[in-house]
Amino acid sequence: MKHLLFLLLWIPLWANAQQKTGDYVCPPCGPCDSIVYHKPGVCPHCGMTLVLRDTTKASAQELKSICFYLYDGTEVLDFAGPLEVFSYAGFKIFTVGKTKAPVTVQGILKVIPDYSIQDAPPADIFAIFGGDDGVAAGDPEVISWIKSRDAVTKRYFSVCTGAFVLANAGLLDSLTVTTFHKSINSLQRVVPSAKVLADVRYVDNGRVITTAGISAGIDGALHLVARLKGETEALRIARHMEYDKYIPEQGLVVKH
Amino acid sequence: MKHLLFLLLWIPLWANAQQKTGDYVCPPCGPCDSIVYHKPGVCPHCGMTLVLRDTTKASAQELKSICFYLYDGTEVLDFAGPLEVFSYAGFKIFTVGKTKAPVTVQGILKVIPDYSIQDAPPADIFAIFGGDDGVAAGDPEVISWIKSRDAVTKRYFSVCTGAFVLANAGLLDSLTVTTFHKSINSLQRVVPSAKVLADVRYVDNGRVITTAGISAGIDGALHLVARLKGETEALRIARHMEYDKYIPEQGLVVKH
Repeated sequence: MKHLLFLLLWIPLWANAQQKTGDYVCPPCGPCDSIVYHKPGVCPHCGMTLVLRDTTKASAQELKSICFYLYDGTEVLDFAGPLEVFSYAGFKIFTVGKTKAPVTVQGILKVIPDYSIQDAPPADIFAIFGGDDGVAAGDPEVISWIKSRDAVTKRYFSVCTGAFVLANAGLLDSLTVTTFHKSINSLQRVVPSAKVLADVRYVDNGRVITTAGISAGIDGALHLVARLKGETEALRIARHMEYDKYIPEQGLVVKH
Repeated sequence: MKHLLFLLLWIPLWANAQQKTGDYVCPPCGPCDSIVYHKPGVCPHCGMTLVLRDTTKASAQELKSICFYLYDGTEVLDFAGPLEVFSYAGFKIFTVGKTKAPVTVQGILKVIPDYSIQDAPPADIFAIFGGDDGVAAGDPEVISWIKSRDAVTKRYFSVCTGAFVLANAGLLDSLTVTTFHKSINSLQRVVPSAKVLADVRYVDNGRVITTAGISAGIDGALHLVARLKGETEALRIARHMEYDKYIPEQGLVVKH
């Protein structure tokens, strides 16, 4: 009886101690999500009640992996818009360069790739971006590397003139696609069997999504999230990015 | 007479040779602008006639310099959107970290800053971005460094919760400002003398421009270009970025 009384007295104290251990984070809502607090409470940025970090973790199976191939002269917003969207969607993102040497994007920003084409792991999605696209599209080693991963790559995603890289890897043949608005005719010449559309934010062929220029990568990425995780999730991310300018009807989903 | 005839015969050949020397680039139009060709002709991407590179150079006096301060946890689209806009406007952009060690933005992208706070040159504009803003806002050395440059800094530009960094440097006192939509109340508590607005893409106080969250940095940057180089230039850049979603009326210019 004495032991039972002792136990009853300690249970509330033990429960309280349990609540106060571990790392606390904001529920997914915005830029403050990644701040880690060491006690429960309220996020000073958004006012939401903090939750234990473990409860916000998605299982490894749920994560989509996506390879961002970067080269000297990549257009910065081409890849940064999708990176923002996919990171909020919980995708596992990594960057790859031809080598591990830093690449200079937009002629300004020096980025260290996570991997080179020698050691990059496989990814569910391969993403490629515009800019000085000839650096990648005209490099036989890069094209050969993209082709060598085709069996394990479930989807392709290009922004702007990144479409020329997919074209040179033979991935756009006979598809309906789009690219940067000033490169429509040029891409049509490179892939005569494709139908290259102007005035559309993105074109989804199922396995291959191509988007229009620069800022349209944001819309294409939100569309891909909608495809894989539902429209509600895409709209949640758009709201949190304050991108209320996302209009799904500005894209085209090709019916097969 | 014989010498004159010889000269007349050579002039067209000499002129032709002159035309074929030097580097050729596309007139400003889009992602293909930075590709360098070694002979005259037509850009294979956009179809525009190439021009000699020197003729596209702005004089050093015309360039606005802008310092992008980056820290671990900076939100990627917060700075990449403005970087895209300002690079098309011909601004001289450089990045600064607390040290020259790589910073990881969005928890993913490894960026090497051009300068540290020890050796960064002065800039016309100081730009700061959101994310784990406490890393910068809560660092007395960084705040002190920002204050130490105030005499030479003509303008301040914050995106999202980057406003908290300007707030801690005492730069938002008594101004009308904005920030990430979930941080409106929090910023109001930090700067009681400011008027913190929700539901506005950016607020321009003249010397200080603050923008709403994440994607709103694009709109704020286009607005700053409009202020410094005219609305026509801002709209040209928006069109080339395929950001026809730029609506100047969604921002607020404070009348003094």
